[in-house]
Amino acid sequence: MSLTVVGSVALDTVETPSGRNEEGLGGAAVFFSLAAANYTPVNLVGVVGTDFPARHVELLRKKGINLDGLERVEGRTFRWAGRYHEDLNQRDTLDTQLNVFEHFHPKLPQAAREAEYLFLGNIHPALQMEVLEQTRPKFIALDTMNLWINATRDDLVKVLKHVDALIINDSEVYDLTGERNLVRGARAIQEMGPRIIAPKKGEHGCLLFVEDRMFSAPALPMEHVIDPTGAGDTFAGGFMGYIAQKDSTDFDTLRRAVIHGSVVASYTCEKFGPERLAEIDLNDIAQRYADFVELARF
Amino acid sequence: MSLTVVGSVALDTVETPSGRNEEGLGGAAVFFSLAAANYTPVNLVGVVGTDFPARHVELLRKKGINLDGLERVEGRTFRWAGRYHEDLNQRDTLDTQLNVFEHFHPKLPQAAREAEYLFLGNIHPALQMEVLEQTRPKFIALDTMNLWINATRDDLVKVLKHVDALIINDSEVYDLTGERNLVRGARAIQEMGPRIIAPKKGEHGCLLFVEDRMFSAPALPMEHVIDPTGAGDTFAGGFMGYIAQKDSTDFDTLRRAVIHGSVVASYTCEKFGPERLAEIDLNDIAQRYADFVELARF
Repeated sequence: MSLTVVGSVALDTVETPSGRNEEGLGGAAVFFSLAAANYTPVNLVGVVGTDFPARHVELLRKKGINLDGLERVEGRTFRWAGRYHEDLNQRDTLDTQLNVFEHFHPKLPQAAREAEYLFLGNIHPALQMEVLEQTRPKFIALDTMNLWINATRDDLVKVLKHVDALIINDSEVYDLTGERNLVRGARAIQEMGPRIIAPKKGEHGCLLFVEDRMFSAPALPMEHVIDPTGAGDTFAGGFMGYIAQKDSTDFDTLRRAVIHGSVVASYTCEKFGPERLAEIDLNDIAQRYADFVELARF
Repeated sequence: MSLTVVGSVALDTVETPSGRNEEGLGGAAVFFSLAAANYTPVNLVGVVGTDFPARHVELLRKKGINLDGLERVEGRTFRWAGRYHEDLNQRDTLDTQLNVFEHFHPKLPQAAREAEYLFLGNIHPALQMEVLEQTRPKFIALDTMNLWINATRDDLVKVLKHVDALIINDSEVYDLTGERNLVRGARAIQEMGPRIIAPKKGEHGCLLFVEDRMFSAPALPMEHVIDPTGAGDTFAGGFMGYIAQKDSTDFDTLRRAVIHGSVVASYTCEKFGPERLAEIDLNDIAQRYADFVELARF
């Protein structure tokens, strides 16, 4: 089944203890698409400026990603700059320039509207709602962040009513519900709409709450993390790509989807930006999936 | 096979968001013994004062724990008081009174010396070394803390040379090695002696490094944690108890030992002190082990 993602396309300047990557390809929709395209046809909906390098478009196209929904408008592409600490769980945002993203209103071309699976990337919840006014696919997942939770809570609550799965950072469960306990927090979010909650815990893996059942997935302990930027979006892409491929959201499929998300996210961390992610194929995925089996079996 | 633990026996005053427990039974050797006694005969080596309540001795004896090595000396028992934050990963120590523990020198009775498995609880590394001068069992595990790592590093490094397994908090891997990355940190500790490193990550579970292999165990997401005091010592007790029962330290046994440690630790968190831990039997352990299988399978 096909899959649509709506979200940011960016040029990221990233510093980590391993080095610096100047104006590299970035943005949630990019990491998501590159991950999901390994599993299923993907439609990317987003916006770039006239300065967006043709080689980035070429990379996405070569991966088979449908770019009919990638608008190109007069102006500069969204830019983000950040610096990671020695402890890679901590980072400072140095600069954010919304540029053409500031006036973005998602417009879904036909293929994007007809996709059975939809991922609403981390953008203003009113824009997420605009997407749902254009399409009602069979399965909708959503990402958000503390900015929207705090500044546009009513809009977010409104869109959450229509959502099947919420994929967020574990700390955002607290921001959204006031619950420090993830089990109670997930239950509280389920009352708001989504039956599936996947709190991402970074290097500690990911939990999955489906109705009253739980799954705990490990992250792969990595000796060298070069750049964790986009790992969460990559996770979402592997997760959604896998369930769209299987066209199933039963609990066992969702468990394996979390592992696939973790598999592709681990590759993202190996090089700057989506460089490593763009290189991998199904063999790499199968190999690392086997590493996860070995890591978690008992 | 039988198992000896050397460590603290205490009276703990604990405040958590769920309530307060005044001068309850505590201490690493107590949690460890109560957990391990489900699996194998346990010898407890420690010290209490003349004020140590008889009902606590009775509780340990009823669990079949050999108390020949529990000295009773003139004076007051070791006391610890702490308060947990709403976020139960954070706690403040309010009071520490070493009392009779200050002049403790472990003396192992015959059964304790003859045990094949030994756990050196979190005490001054010079005292841990005194234990090794009395016995050389086939398998030795050790716990420590940032205080000893920083204040008595040379003593600790000396004792680590003789140790098979190090069971510590993940943050202490950094304290000990200067490595923020757990994989590189574990490798650095292996250079110091132990071939097995188990960094405990609290609510995020536990990693296990055995030579060049890794295992990641989840923690059970719990809706209500009443008191996490002693969970780490309980984990060590379940881990060591299981491998002593199986008399094996092959990788598959060690994996399952980590899960057993996590199983008993989850029970400890359900009530104050070791109250819940003292109630459980092999049926409870088997039931929760099945919960862990369901939690982690994919």
